[in-house]
Amino acid sequence: MGNPEAAMLVIGDEILSGRTRDSNMHFLAGELTKHGIRLAEVRVVPDIHERIVEALRALSAGHDLVFTSGGIGPTHDDITADAVAAAFGAAIDVREDARAVMQEYYDRMGREMNEARLRMARIPEGAALIDNPISAAPGFTIGNVHVMAGVPSVFQAMVASVLPTLTGGAPLLSQNLNLGLAEGDIAGPLRALADEFPGLSIGSYPYQRDGVYGTNVVIRGEDGAQIDAAMGRLCALIPEGRT
Amino acid sequence: MGNPEAAMLVIGDEILSGRTRDSNMHFLAGELTKHGIRLAEVRVVPDIHERIVEALRALSAGHDLVFTSGGIGPTHDDITADAVAAAFGAAIDVREDARAVMQEYYDRMGREMNEARLRMARIPEGAALIDNPISAAPGFTIGNVHVMAGVPSVFQAMVASVLPTLTGGAPLLSQNLNLGLAEGDIAGPLRALADEFPGLSIGSYPYQRDGVYGTNVVIRGEDGAQIDAAMGRLCALIPEGRT
Repeated sequence: MGNPEAAMLVIGDEILSGRTRDSNMHFLAGELTKHGIRLAEVRVVPDIHERIVEALRALSAGHDLVFTSGGIGPTHDDITADAVAAAFGAAIDVREDARAVMQEYYDRMGREMNEARLRMARIPEGAALIDNPISAAPGFTIGNVHVMAGVPSVFQAMVASVLPTLTGGAPLLSQNLNLGLAEGDIAGPLRALADEFPGLSIGSYPYQRDGVYGTNVVIRGEDGAQIDAAMGRLCALIPEGRT
Repeated sequence: MGNPEAAMLVIGDEILSGRTRDSNMHFLAGELTKHGIRLAEVRVVPDIHERIVEALRALSAGHDLVFTSGGIGPTHDDITADAVAAAFGAAIDVREDARAVMQEYYDRMGREMNEARLRMARIPEGAALIDNPISAAPGFTIGNVHVMAGVPSVFQAMVASVLPTLTGGAPLLSQNLNLGLAEGDIAGPLRALADEFPGLSIGSYPYQRDGVYGTNVVIRGEDGAQIDAAMGRLCALIPEGRT
């Protein structure tokens, strides 16, 4: 299928220690799907320079687009910008346009631009800034990598800035059928359906509510007419059990 | 630090499409931390054989332990067991002890053991079964890889079965200080603290509530006395702002 493929790199000890439950992956996955971009892989790595550089190189080489989340704040463990610069062999220094945007914001907020905050204006050479309407300190794009903040409100605002600049594919469509049957009872028909419609993705998601077993069947693809046809075929294959 | 390092592999199109928000990563991260095992990397891959095999080989070679989540159900897109077998060059077939446990459960539930459900008794040669007290179909351990279900209740029960069999390191301890100060205002002292206590991990997590900025500082490590000392030093470095 012709959709661009993306990867995401989540950077942060707090996710891996269990302190923080990441929400950026789920948000980005939904936004990319709407935009016709297929999220093909996610990695989560700790705040260790070599690990970030290695993951960035692998994901950037293996996918059309990469989105990163986390590690661009003012403190000593915010090392993403330097790791991205290293991965691309680019120099990194304070950039005047980034500093100016931040200075204007801190002046308005009555805060001082200290040495720690100035680190957030360090941008790899050749990168384009990503607007941060929440707290000014920008993200940036270099090569096929979009570098964004980990704080969810800022991450989401940056995704909103970046997505319109990207060329998506055909929107990824889906239809859902909720069946009051256990997954193991419909696996045969689902396999037959998948064989009959190789261009579609047929997923099944079992659940149990109040002791009753059921399964949500989701048919995904780019061709709405084909999804309609597959859904009709599914209803014929499994006449009982629709809830 | 001497703790064993683990990686996690989450398998499933539904996570990458944004349909389902994964919860197993956050659960496992917390359990491993309590058990003195450091979660060092997470990858999420789609239901594609080659991607699963490739990720399994990389994670198994690079870490002491690997935990997988998802893709061991009865339907055509449940391909994890075959991918694990391929990654280890092991044969895979229905195993009698797995089949027997499932047969007993289906008999009790008044369900039939059909061809689709029998797939869940296919276990790579040489693997040890992981008990599934929820829905019988077992997980398994082969080499340093623990293969578990994606349904959160089953995943959690399997983690509870596996963890007591693993040798953890010293428990990973942490202390938290909530400061009513923006992250950029305390980054200098935090860096000084990190330099003074190189054996500890000093994390800072900014937040904004009702327009007020604050930062949670978390000090993590294995040595409780050292964490106490660092926390005392932090309070001396930042006398104002404790909430």
